[in-house]
Amino acid sequence: MIMTVTMKLGQLAEFLGATLSGPEELEITGLATLQEAGPGQLSFLANPQYRKYLGETHAAAILLKPADAEGFAGNALIVPDPYLAYARLSHLFDPKPRAVAGIHPSAVVAADAQVDASASVGACAVIESGAQVGPGVTIGAQCFIGARCVIGEGGWLAPRVTLYHDVRIGKRVVIQSGAVIGGEGFGFANDKGVWQKIAQIGGVSIGDDVEIGVNTAVDRGALADTRIGDGVKLDNQIQIAHNVQIGDHTAMAACVGISGSTKIGKHCTIAGGVGMVGHIDVCDNVFVSGMTMVTRSITEPGAYSSGTAMQPLAEWRKSAARIRQLDEMSKRLQQLEKRLAAVTSGDKASSEG
Amino acid sequence: MIMTVTMKLGQLAEFLGATLSGPEELEITGLATLQEAGPGQLSFLANPQYRKYLGETHAAAILLKPADAEGFAGNALIVPDPYLAYARLSHLFDPKPRAVAGIHPSAVVAADAQVDASASVGACAVIESGAQVGPGVTIGAQCFIGARCVIGEGGWLAPRVTLYHDVRIGKRVVIQSGAVIGGEGFGFANDKGVWQKIAQIGGVSIGDDVEIGVNTAVDRGALADTRIGDGVKLDNQIQIAHNVQIGDHTAMAACVGISGSTKIGKHCTIAGGVGMVGHIDVCDNVFVSGMTMVTRSITEPGAYSSGTAMQPLAEWRKSAARIRQLDEMSKRLQQLEKRLAAVTSGDKASSEG
Amino acid sequence: MIMTVTMKLGQLAEFLGATLSGPEELEITGLATLQEAGPGQLSFLANPQYRKYLGETHAAAILLKPADAEGFAGNALIVPDPYLAYARLSHLFDPKPRAVAGIHPSAVVAADAQVDASASVGACAVIESGAQVGPGVTIGAQCFIGARCVIGEGGWLAPRVTLYHDVRIGKRVVIQSGAVIGGEGFGFANDKGVWQKIAQIGGVSIGDDVEIGVNTAVDRGALADTRIGDGVKLDNQIQIAHNVQIGDHTAMAACVGISGSTKIGKHCTIAGGVGMVGHIDVCDNVFVSGMTMVTRSITEPGAYSSGTAMQPLAEWRKSAARIRQLDEMSKRLQQLEKRLAAVTSGDKASSEG
Repeated sequence: MIMTVTMKLGQLAEFLGATLSGPEELEITGLATLQEAGPGQLSFLANPQYRKYLGETHAAAILLKPADAEGFAGNALIVPDPYLAYARLSHLFDPKPRAVAGIHPSAVVAADAQVDASASVGACAVIESGAQVGPGVTIGAQCFIGARCVIGEGGWLAPRVTLYHDVRIGKRVVIQSGAVIGGEGFGFANDKGVWQKIAQIGGVSIGDDVEIGVNTAVDRGALADTRIGDGVKLDNQIQIAHNVQIGDHTAMAACVGISGSTKIGKHCTIAGGVGMVGHIDVCDNVFVSGMTMVTRSITEPGAYSSGTAMQPLAEWRKSAARIRQLDEMSKRLQQLEKRLAAVTSGDKASSEG
Repeated sequence: MIMTVTMKLGQLAEFLGATLSGPEELEITGLATLQEAGPGQLSFLANPQYRKYLGETHAAAILLKPADAEGFAGNALIVPDPYLAYARLSHLFDPKPRAVAGIHPSAVVAADAQVDASASVGACAVIESGAQVGPGVTIGAQCFIGARCVIGEGGWLAPRVTLYHDVRIGKRVVIQSGAVIGGEGFGFANDKGVWQKIAQIGGVSIGDDVEIGVNTAVDRGALADTRIGDGVKLDNQIQIAHNVQIGDHTAMAACVGISGSTKIGKHCTIAGGVGMVGHIDVCDNVFVSGMTMVTRSITEPGAYSSGTAMQPLAEWRKSAARIRQLDEMSKRLQQLEKRLAAVTSGDKASSEG
Repeated sequence: MIMTVTMKLGQLAEFLGATLSGPEELEITGLATLQEAGPGQLSFLANPQYRKYLGETHAAAILLKPADAEGFAGNALIVPDPYLAYARLSHLFDPKPRAVAGIHPSAVVAADAQVDASASVGACAVIESGAQVGPGVTIGAQCFIGARCVIGEGGWLAPRVTLYHDVRIGKRVVIQSGAVIGGEGFGFANDKGVWQKIAQIGGVSIGDDVEIGVNTAVDRGALADTRIGDGVKLDNQIQIAHNVQIGDHTAMAACVGISGSTKIGKHCTIAGGVGMVGHIDVCDNVFVSGMTMVTRSITEPGAYSSGTAMQPLAEWRKSAARIRQLDEMSKRLQQLEKRLAAVTSGDKASSEG
């Protein structure tokens, strides 16, 4: 554990609205998994496959569902959803340094930028002309906030986030280090083999409660804006091309790449490494499995995949070679069916004869 | 729209050398697609599938090919290639802030670096010993320009671009935020299971009119330089390993990874997420489709692919299981062919008998 | 060549403990491949397929194995492993600028951070409260070192590396530009379709002699630490999610993505673009080929692959279509086998009858 915060079990019960089973005054100094928890740490049981650790854990107390709490002799906080309760408590024990309000003297802030007095601007950050930084916003060290950007109340930008000009961000948005919002999308017109740049004159518009991961890129629109809906969660190393639209509460794991002008619906879950071609529509409530290549629109909710299963290399070589023969194999199969049909009809003919 | 620039339709016609069909004095305040254009905005028809929007667009005027202009009653600028004309006009309406010449007082520039008086160096930028920054170059805020780098006339580096030492860049090169040029490539010699680092003593050499996207990495050479030809366009999140060579006017979409010492020809188009192994040659005029794994040299121009088509997850599971049985299926097919041949030859024998 | 360092052949022999075959006083000004070496440059023969260049090289001298040195008339340094010898020599000819000890006046260092007097802190670097920077460490320009981070002796951080708070790094660790260590992993609990953030309260612990590439991300742990073992080498653009554990001396090429809580053994080699799902175990001494998707634990050392071999696009389309028919093809094959068995048993019956 990194730092110790001490809370009393009773305080945590109150914070969560949980049923307390154990001493109010018990001191809790941190959170840990059932297997790793030591004395003083609170744990949780969310996944039933970890129930086996209940008996042997050294946790001081455990977040439990009512059903799991029955017959449990140790200290517990009883809640309807232990994982959600853990999510809520986690913020109390977070050792992340809290920024203090004010502008660091080494930051470079344009005279006409508006920074709320309750906002924090870190060392060596740069804020350009006309930008607006809302109440309670943290701009980490070395961030770059381009001209006319708007960052809504309660936003938290880690050190070294870059926003190009004209990026509009909602409330309580979290952006991790290295993320770049508003880069110039890949727009070129081919003129007899030579690529001519198209200025990307749209912006980026990001909803409330969005999270954007480390080194993720969201390009600005070519004409209209690139749009990220409310509650969208983007993991690390993701590429969102110009004019992509992502619906509310959709989540994407790391290393996903979405090509230009593709629209993704609400409440979708896109696993790591997925690629999508441009100019397609994906409807709401779609799950795409890891490293799938999405080459066409998806119009039905459900789960989708591409790729092949992993094999030992020697076996894989055989499969890969056979795949290249598949079209020929299919034709041979058809041929066999015809020939066998001829044989059996011949048989019939002879047996009937 | 972010900012309004106002141009007259006649001015735009003159700028493009277009045939004007409409009032010279008509004010144009921006660009938009046919579907989204409002009054005052100029649009274009490039893709024939959008011709259906011609009738209902609210655009003030449209860039049209002569054939599409026939019978069109609205205002138009008639040009041979509307998409190229749009590309040219886009820069007139670009709200991107223009940097002013001079070195920001917070920038840290080595005494022996040469920065042209017409160049702009942004806040908190760092320029190391012996670097040369040419006329009209923009070095964005928080850029790092390593020792002895050379940046040719008219280059534009977004905020937070990093060039390690000894990177040579041609004229009019655009580099987006987070890109890192000249990182130390992945060079290690294995010494009984322990990796020993090989110093990467080559540099990077980049031609004229190149564009490098957000968070793209181009490693320095191990011995000789990594080389990027003239007019090459690299999108975001790309990895170019040490000693790769990329031919003139080749374009790569996002998330491509090229392994060490691979040579790619001219006028190639590499779609998003493609991977190439090292030490191979790809000839000129090759197209590689999205997420293809290129494991061997390509010696014939044309289009290449790997991977499987997306399926609903339940169907995909069956396909994936079957692929692992393919070698066995192929053998069973061969066996059937033999057995059927035996049967039919037996039939013949009996019918002949 | 970028800069000239001059060494005498005798000095190099002594440095390596090599057998000198040639004049002690011969001046060596750089390193190059056999094909590219010019006068004054030292080369090496490691891969037997380059032996053909021995006769025609212009290198001043060559690193050779005893067997290759027999009958070679030119100057040579004879060593057991020429590639390792080249690796060792490469550092002598590295033009990378050496940082000078001390803190640049533009750096922002917290009053209670401990920076060893022999360490170097570059321009516009930011070091937060309680951080410890060991002897001989280089912190490049524009780096961010979060609160309570510890960086062991001899570390080298390129410009613009970001460490969030509570990252512990061993000795002699190299981190390239744009890398982000300790970002907040992708932890969310789903509450009726809305994602609730889980604070990531663990840290990152990195062993000795690790190298981390350009724009690579290593997330902090959710509860316990994310752990990178000794001697691990991570190339560029890699994603390491929260609570991943990587065993000693494992190497990963660029663009790999490892999902949360996955454990990878020692001495593994993971090729470029590989993806691994979360919560799996990969044993020691595993090789995974490029762009493989690892969806299950690997318990046996060896080589593993997924994916299909590249084909010309037109042929690939046929293969991809056939793969979707594979389950049906398999059933038809089985059907054929049954029918043929019936026919042949019928034949037998009739021939026996």
